Amino acid sequence: MAAGSPRDEEKPLLHYVSSIKIITGRARHPQKAAAIPCSGHGRVFLDTILAANGEPSCECNRCFAGTDCSSKIKNCNAKVDSGDPMFLEPFWDANAEAGAVVIPPVHRMSYLTEATAEGRRITLELERLIRQVHEFVGNAVIKDKFIVIGTGSMELINAAVASLAPIASNTLPKSPPALVVSRAPYYQAYQMQTEFFASTQYIWGGEPSIAAKKFANTGSTFIEFVAAPNNPDASMKEPELKFNGSFTVFDRAYYWPHYSPIFKAMDDDVMLFTLSKLTGHAGSRLGWAIVKDPKVYARLSQYVLLNTNGVSHDTQLRASRLLRAVLEGYSTTGAKTGVRDPQVYAKSQHIFHFAQSVMNSRWQKLEKIFARSMQFSLQYVEAQQCNFFKAIISPSPAYAWVKCEDPGLIMNSSCFNVFKNAGIIGRAGGYGDERDNSYVRFALLIGNDDFDNFMEHLNKFLTE
Amino acid sequence: MAAGSPRDEEKPLLHYVSSIKIITGRARHPQKAAAIPCSGHGRVFLDTILAANGEPSCECNRCFAGTDCSSKIKNCNAKVDSGDPMFLEPFWDANAEAGAVVIPPVHRMSYLTEATAEGRRITLELERLIRQVHEFVGNAVIKDKFIVIGTGSMELINAAVASLAPIASNTLPKSPPALVVSRAPYYQAYQMQTEFFASTQYIWGGEPSIAAKKFANTGSTFIEFVAAPNNPDASMKEPELKFNGSFTVFDRAYYWPHYSPIFKAMDDDVMLFTLSKLTGHAGSRLGWAIVKDPKVYARLSQYVLLNTNGVSHDTQLRASRLLRAVLEGYSTTGAKTGVRDPQVYAKSQHIFHFAQSVMNSRWQKLEKIFARSMQFSLQYVEAQQCNFFKAIISPSPAYAWVKCEDPGLIMNSSCFNVFKNAGIIGRAGGYGDERDNSYVRFALLIGNDDFDNFMEHLNKFLTE
Repeated sequence: MAAGSPRDEEKPLLHYVSSIKIITGRARHPQKAAAIPCSGHGRVFLDTILAANGEPSCECNRCFAGTDCSSKIKNCNAKVDSGDPMFLEPFWDANAEAGAVVIPPVHRMSYLTEATAEGRRITLELERLIRQVHEFVGNAVIKDKFIVIGTGSMELINAAVASLAPIASNTLPKSPPALVVSRAPYYQAYQMQTEFFASTQYIWGGEPSIAAKKFANTGSTFIEFVAAPNNPDASMKEPELKFNGSFTVFDRAYYWPHYSPIFKAMDDDVMLFTLSKLTGHAGSRLGWAIVKDPKVYARLSQYVLLNTNGVSHDTQLRASRLLRAVLEGYSTTGAKTGVRDPQVYAKSQHIFHFAQSVMNSRWQKLEKIFARSMQFSLQYVEAQQCNFFKAIISPSPAYAWVKCEDPGLIMNSSCFNVFKNAGIIGRAGGYGDERDNSYVRFALLIGNDDFDNFMEHLNKFLTE
Repeated sequence: MAAGSPRDEEKPLLHYVSSIKIITGRARHPQKAAAIPCSGHGRVFLDTILAANGEPSCECNRCFAGTDCSSKIKNCNAKVDSGDPMFLEPFWDANAEAGAVVIPPVHRMSYLTEATAEGRRITLELERLIRQVHEFVGNAVIKDKFIVIGTGSMELINAAVASLAPIASNTLPKSPPALVVSRAPYYQAYQMQTEFFASTQYIWGGEPSIAAKKFANTGSTFIEFVAAPNNPDASMKEPELKFNGSFTVFDRAYYWPHYSPIFKAMDDDVMLFTLSKLTGHAGSRLGWAIVKDPKVYARLSQYVLLNTNGVSHDTQLRASRLLRAVLEGYSTTGAKTGVRDPQVYAKSQHIFHFAQSVMNSRWQKLEKIFARSMQFSLQYVEAQQCNFFKAIISPSPAYAWVKCEDPGLIMNSSCFNVFKNAGIIGRAGGYGDERDNSYVRFALLIGNDDFDNFMEHLNKFLTE
């Protein structure tokens, strides 16, 4: 059977789904609904709570209101702080059949799946599909590697630290807690988790080079987080610490054709990925670690078992369906080459083409706006050769990393506040150094309504 | 609209599900399948991996093999170690339509739900249904309480400790780590998690009364776990520590009519529940904490956000559907009174009646077998008045807690090993004291095949 092609037994489902659009989160009462249900600015989900009149009403996007979400709220701030990958929603609207799943109540009720002889909690089908997607995209070497899934890569960040720390310590008996480090600017969760979970086995160490000097003769070991492409600035970071007794965790969440050229299949010891940034299903809580060392694999598995007892089987089934749809989209009209205008891909089955073209068109808009400004600058991202598209690809980063160039602007304040005063809520601080004040992160992978609102505010602010 | 009744827009789904039994985890090729697909000893799930011939094959229950699971494996050990609540599977087979859900690919892709203004991650619909089920059963006071969901109650055990520990410490500045305690025999996860996560803020303290004496003058605070009904012995435990500076976490996983008479609506400060032991969906990873104190609620929510960023929306949708089916089962033929033979409820829509009658009939079998034995004894469980069934209910505990009475039997060994040698794998040790050697836990809430195998082995062993 071709990879990702629908199974025979699913064909009735596909027909069914197309005939039940009324319950798929669009209108439930088509005769009452407008031509565009919820005016295109909201949704009715299957578990949307019923209003007082016993009918479900639209859940409106931010800055929209009314029973059908048709009223635009005036003076509504642009919120671009969260990396919520809603730009992929239109793709799944266009591929509603390919990505739908029916879950009968007897579906995998047990704690165990068929693959759990050794205490694993991943279905063979999901593992097969994760491997196949990486092989198809060419972004990670997965041969002879282990896969551990978690409830989002969020769970796996601390899992990786907790798994590496005792292994690190074992190399030097009675060593002090391992130091968790990352070069600024870094994704805040590394520090937040490490500090919040307050372990005896590891502590937050901040900037790798500084921590390495400070703790040079203490017997400390180091766990360095390297997000590449980096969150927030999209740079292809490299680890700073490479000596004996240092471990690197590579966060590869954004290493998909959506956000970055694919340079090569990465072959690192520990790599983290997440469904959220691949298919856009942030609410489905699925991440995976690809690891080389069987000891690290065993510890990671144990951590997940003790922390959450594995990933929901509902999510594993849905993720399998979505990954099959991703592969299926390319199985018939397989061309991987080139990307063009996002409109071309609006109804396409090619998720990578769709995603890259949307993100690139957004980036072009930003570059154009910031080109006018002397006070604010956007990070530089280069057009580069992508092995997946087999072409030079113009930039499509997940975030804008904006600098307030004028020190007068941020005196006694911050770049975040400068934009906040203009009604643009980016993400502030916590990136590890002075950039906390002079930089602000804007998420670009958000939904269309949020992005449009952002553009409106930004245009107005930078023109004034 | 009546609580739990199917929504109009779901009716096409219900018809659909009944017409697609071929994909609901029974046979996919009815023309090839036997009268009972997978011979009643296995299943084909939607994500069952395809065999080399491109067709899915049955996933057989333990001790069964063959393409259709019709061969019983000889000399196959009885495994009764895990609390895998598969005894509820037949109920959902009989209620396949009521519990099925279609998930379109655009379903709640975002990190956020409509209720997440304050960083919450629970849908309003799921929260409404959790509250309604507790009100219907009468096992917990939920009015004016907060609900925090987690990826299984597993996540919430350590979340509760991590949330209470700093609050406990704040009452006495610079106090030593909080002591996590539980009276033996206790559920092993309390100790395993506390030790594994190796926090600076709390440590494992063992037996409450001993720890309280030992650390009397240290300024230590205490977090006591009280499972009631208790895992493993079904007793209605009460907290041992009730002084200022001690906190109690009540694990109410088994406080459902399935396993215990409902004495009253419990009104404790912190209570843990899990979908696993209510509907049997252990693989769906959903637990909830019911808490009184807004400070504890805020910490718990923060913990879940940082640990896993909330519970999968797929699972929240499915759980909502299942809880509605539970309520719907009673909405038309509402009688809560009395329970009788399990056969009566085999095809019923009354989950509590079905569950209690199955567990009770299993307990009666065990009592009969152990009555013959002088060497082994079963814990005593009393028939008591149940407010839910409005009747005196004979016992239906989730676990058997068996004592090896003869010290000679366990000399240099353990009660676990005595049964293991007879091919019965219970759960050994880790309960906190000498009971580790002279007791063994057998799970009774397992699937029918596993229970039958257990009975065979037990009958043979105790007759010999």
